[in-house]
Amino acid sequence: MCDQTKKGIGHLVVIGIGPGSQACCTPQAQQAVADATLIYGYGPYLDRLTLAPHQQRIASDNRVEAQRAREALTQAAAGHRVAMVSGGDPGVFAMAAAVCEQIDAGPAEWRTLTVAFVPGVTAMLAVAAECGAPLGHDFCAISLSDNLKPWTTVLKRLDAAVAGDFVMAFYNPRSTARPWQLDAAFDHLRARLPADTVVLYGRAAGRPDARYWVSALQEASSEGVDMATLVIVGANATRVIERPQRQPLVYTPRYQP
Amino acid sequence: MCDQTKKGIGHLVVIGIGPGSQACCTPQAQQAVADATLIYGYGPYLDRLTLAPHQQRIASDNRVEAQRAREALTQAAAGHRVAMVSGGDPGVFAMAAAVCEQIDAGPAEWRTLTVAFVPGVTAMLAVAAECGAPLGHDFCAISLSDNLKPWTTVLKRLDAAVAGDFVMAFYNPRSTARPWQLDAAFDHLRARLPADTVVLYGRAAGRPDARYWVSALQEASSEGVDMATLVIVGANATRVIERPQRQPLVYTPRYQP
Repeated sequence: MCDQTKKGIGHLVVIGIGPGSQACCTPQAQQAVADATLIYGYGPYLDRLTLAPHQQRIASDNRVEAQRAREALTQAAAGHRVAMVSGGDPGVFAMAAAVCEQIDAGPAEWRTLTVAFVPGVTAMLAVAAECGAPLGHDFCAISLSDNLKPWTTVLKRLDAAVAGDFVMAFYNPRSTARPWQLDAAFDHLRARLPADTVVLYGRAAGRPDARYWVSALQEASSEGVDMATLVIVGANATRVIERPQRQPLVYTPRYQP
Repeated sequence: MCDQTKKGIGHLVVIGIGPGSQACCTPQAQQAVADATLIYGYGPYLDRLTLAPHQQRIASDNRVEAQRAREALTQAAAGHRVAMVSGGDPGVFAMAAAVCEQIDAGPAEWRTLTVAFVPGVTAMLAVAAECGAPLGHDFCAISLSDNLKPWTTVLKRLDAAVAGDFVMAFYNPRSTARPWQLDAAFDHLRARLPADTVVLYGRAAGRPDARYWVSALQEASSEGVDMATLVIVGANATRVIERPQRQPLVYTPRYQP
């Protein structure tokens, strides 16, 4: 993306700043933030950045992605160097698709803009790394939010994931406005998967208050789960290695007969 | 992972150095490499590191993961500070699962070791970022290698991905020893998906010789694809935005009716 971005000409760069801490944000992402003068994003993500005096932050709520994308594109078209930050990776249930949607639906001029995307470590990779290698074999990522798709589509994808024996990573598992979806997903899976299927929960990965826990599917519950949590449901082969005085390792073997 | 790793006591850290360039390697990963004295990995990944004189590199072929993991664990148990590097993320079709397998099968002592995993930007995120937001909605990651699972399992997962209307990211799509699997997967999908399904190819993401191209499923072919290539097959909703004098953007909308 670097060579596509010319300083002095308006551009929009959608940047993944990784999970939690600065230590997980790539040099490429840090440089892309430094190159911008207008920085858009959800407030808590902007709070993680150290900006220079000439850089302006424009914080917005996390439910107004389309409007935020249009504003950022408008500013880029006006000649500003604009950044849009996402936690984790911008392409996984985050701002990159929202920006593309607006370019697709917007004025022809927006198709001539320099638009770039900088990848980051997405939540499922961060949670997996803290706990072993649960994504060590074929897996899928599903958003449990039914704000942008019907719940029946979520259930269809859970059924497909069961049929394919995929490890499943659940994004947006639960929020104040969506309190029941994760428990409904667990109930749906309990009727279809072995009771001892491994379920792994990671909250606030990469942050000082990070927390990780494991349960069997039969006891899986949304207790303690919020929008900062990533939930992984293992495949048939996913295993737990108990260790003395250490948290267990969860992994999915590479070899599957 | 940082607080789990005590200097001076043997440990093994499995590190994702991201795709291609140093700019995509997190500070956490760079620090973890710097903290080690023995660095294991596939030669081309080790070539990307700048090591200090006291650091010893132990390069191995990419088909001897189990042996490499055992050696690294043995050295950590002997008190060495050992790193194992993977390109991309170590938890996605890479060394993290191989290390867990060896701990699971190995001597009890290995369960007492400090073992940590440092996430990285995996290939599908890097390729997606270069091309727009193809992974903007629910997706799955499938290794097309049938070295560690039967080809029938690959086909079962393709069928499940079709049933769930997932975007699919194919790792290990083709190698000299496995020349036919990607074309067989395309043939399998052609009988089940619309002819204009978007297929995206990214080779050597993040490297100076990176190359990206797009085709419709009806013309999809393994030509130009090798082990350094990541292939993404779109869902029904995946779209291409043509742009004047720029490469097209490929994205999957967040909203799906």
